[in-house]
Amino acid sequence: MKNILLLGAGRSASTLIQYLLDHAATEEWTVTVADASAELAAAKTQGHPAASAVGLSIQDEEARKALIGKADLVVSLLPPHMHMIPAMDCLEMGKHFITASYESKEMAALHAEVEAKGLIFLNEMGLDPGIDHLSAMEMVDEVRSRGGEPVAFRSYCGALVAPDSNNEWGYKFTWAPMNVVLAGQGGTATYLQDGRTRYQVYQRLFSEAETVEVPDWGKFEAYKNRDSLSYISKYGLEGIKTFYRATLRFRGYCRFWNHLLRLGLTENVTKISTEGMTKGDFLFSFLEELPGKSRLESLAAFVGETPNGDNVSKLVNLGLISDEPIDIASGTPAEILLSILEPKWKFEDDDHDLIVMLHQLDFTLKGRTKRLSYHMVVKGKDPVHTAVSRTVGLPAAIAAKLILRGEITRKGVIIPNFREIYDPVLRELEELGIGFVRGEQG
Amino acid sequence: MKNILLLGAGRSASTLIQYLLDHAATEEWTVTVADASAELAAAKTQGHPAASAVGLSIQDEEARKALIGKADLVVSLLPPHMHMIPAMDCLEMGKHFITASYESKEMAALHAEVEAKGLIFLNEMGLDPGIDHLSAMEMVDEVRSRGGEPVAFRSYCGALVAPDSNNEWGYKFTWAPMNVVLAGQGGTATYLQDGRTRYQVYQRLFSEAETVEVPDWGKFEAYKNRDSLSYISKYGLEGIKTFYRATLRFRGYCRFWNHLLRLGLTENVTKISTEGMTKGDFLFSFLEELPGKSRLESLAAFVGETPNGDNVSKLVNLGLISDEPIDIASGTPAEILLSILEPKWKFEDDDHDLIVMLHQLDFTLKGRTKRLSYHMVVKGKDPVHTAVSRTVGLPAAIAAKLILRGEITRKGVIIPNFREIYDPVLRELEELGIGFVRGEQG
Repeated sequence: MKNILLLGAGRSASTLIQYLLDHAATEEWTVTVADASAELAAAKTQGHPAASAVGLSIQDEEARKALIGKADLVVSLLPPHMHMIPAMDCLEMGKHFITASYESKEMAALHAEVEAKGLIFLNEMGLDPGIDHLSAMEMVDEVRSRGGEPVAFRSYCGALVAPDSNNEWGYKFTWAPMNVVLAGQGGTATYLQDGRTRYQVYQRLFSEAETVEVPDWGKFEAYKNRDSLSYISKYGLEGIKTFYRATLRFRGYCRFWNHLLRLGLTENVTKISTEGMTKGDFLFSFLEELPGKSRLESLAAFVGETPNGDNVSKLVNLGLISDEPIDIASGTPAEILLSILEPKWKFEDDDHDLIVMLHQLDFTLKGRTKRLSYHMVVKGKDPVHTAVSRTVGLPAAIAAKLILRGEITRKGVIIPNFREIYDPVLRELEELGIGFVRGEQG
Repeated sequence: MKNILLLGAGRSASTLIQYLLDHAATEEWTVTVADASAELAAAKTQGHPAASAVGLSIQDEEARKALIGKADLVVSLLPPHMHMIPAMDCLEMGKHFITASYESKEMAALHAEVEAKGLIFLNEMGLDPGIDHLSAMEMVDEVRSRGGEPVAFRSYCGALVAPDSNNEWGYKFTWAPMNVVLAGQGGTATYLQDGRTRYQVYQRLFSEAETVEVPDWGKFEAYKNRDSLSYISKYGLEGIKTFYRATLRFRGYCRFWNHLLRLGLTENVTKISTEGMTKGDFLFSFLEELPGKSRLESLAAFVGETPNGDNVSKLVNLGLISDEPIDIASGTPAEILLSILEPKWKFEDDDHDLIVMLHQLDFTLKGRTKRLSYHMVVKGKDPVHTAVSRTVGLPAAIAAKLILRGEITRKGVIIPNFREIYDPVLRELEELGIGFVRGEQG
């Protein structure tokens, strides 16, 4: 019997746990689920005979090391800044380690030691990062094997809500809501276009969003991700002329969001007291009321539409010219905006989330330019096995199986950008309903 | 004999030192100037019989305490984050203490102890903060003494270059250049207008600059300072309807600067390698070159002018469509922009700087609304006794004299917002050529 230890039993753990338990008998596994909340861990394992659920404070070194010592492989779904704690234990005690998070510099620095011990520390094994790497590398390898030369790679991914439960803003919170409000504020988007490094600053990110067509699904909008350049070497695409990664939204979202950005409502520095402040007062502390005009007319003038215009309506229907009270006593503009968005954009139990991923790889072959495209659309099954939970959890779960079977020969601190891992994982994901549609033009 | 110890002999110390030495004989002072560079300290005291110049590392506790122990009053022109080091010594050894910097929370926390020892720790005794407080309080006290009720206070200050040595951008670096590039990025400007707290986010700060007229000098532009609200209680103006502080620039500056801001060139987070990059490449890594258009035409389209438009010319004349190399190997957009601005906006030895300050105090008196205004324009004398050096140094120097004469009865950690200090200091500043012109309307 082999023991898999899962650290963290939160939202995105559900499908991962189900996969591990479903395979426990045939693979001869026991599965230990540890979470700060023992109740949550128990709720997720539901008394399965192969499972044990334990309460664990990750700072409790003795308890943590006891659990890791009994494991053959550890999957960490902890907050990213905590991964190094179990990783160091795994290195010390000779255990394999998987996360769905970006490989940190601290983690990468362990590579030689991990490799020397014959261990695998596999990071970026979720959706984004994760499935994006698996599928991109399959595309790159195919093009190269045919003798093609990649010239442009564009990768788009969005966590959305399925159109059947969509709202007028075309968005609901299916994932960390504050990250949505702060999107783009970490630094200027950096990417490669036509052979030159390009920069797009936050104040232009949404106003200069791109329109992109997903086959069978129609047009979406996409705003650039912060860092695209570091992926070029990860995908072995040095010398490519155009390379970027972007976030997908339904049409109309970026123009709408840009109005909130221009107003200053996404700023996350300045503390504001909202005592006695209505949602209308909040908006009009950032926007001037024009002399002799109503709040509606003043807002319409700022947006550049008539008072019954589309974006004006979206702002009005958030309550932004209303006398409704604000739900929090103080906060940054971003925190207050989030409190206003949350009830309107709440992901309900009868909603289904939707993951959309699209890659376009342009290449030259025998003097002609062609485009290989992959797209994947995954709809959530229910409030537990959401598309996010499935696409984040299943790659890590399948990787755990491959590692414990000894089918991954590469060692050290790695990400899933090589055939030995992308091939079996993509094939199994397809069987589980998470598959790409391949297309080629030119 | 009383001994004054000055910590820091940099640019803004010159006029302060000259004042202290000019008054040393009549006031019976000796003056010790201590700086990390003993040469700089000696250059500033020039062998004056009342002066001694010493090299001092502020972290050298023994040397520092020996100097402070021999002093009756310490003036600190150290970088603001260092003031607490000599302040703690002054508290321990019972010495008065003066700075031209904002009163920090740590400093304010010493108030009871300083007061109990009968000491004066006077902060914000320079230009801005400093002369702004002195003059504002004189205006407020006058209005109140006449029975008037303040309804609006607007305060403007700018460190500019005199029109006779002005350039086409209407600006030269007479003060910390990086602060000019990063202006407005600390957080959303917060102020009071018509009884309501108002917020203006960075991306709107320069595009919504105000035009303001300075009597005899014509129209200027002004962008809001970050924090205006905390001054309301400092000036005893609780209940006022409109209150803000703003930074003055010559006309055209804010519109021009807004183009740099919109482009993303003032962003100070993202590290960019500029290897082999020309100034034109730098601009056009942030701006798209329109198909079939020249760089000049693409820039003009972004600015919304013809290619020979005013703002296009200002950008072109910075070298931003040229093949000139960039002087630094890497940096944030803001750092690279600064390297491009510095040679063009260099303050030369034959330039004169210009301090412009304007206050408008609107008040009601016997049912009528009136406006009391104060304005002050100070031109630098020479490269050493600049307007900045004079307006920052002289208030602190005069305050040192008043304190050593025992003419300030208020004790503790204080700022100069009371009559006992503003009256004699403003009168002496007038004699030294730093005077306000008073006006009244309505």
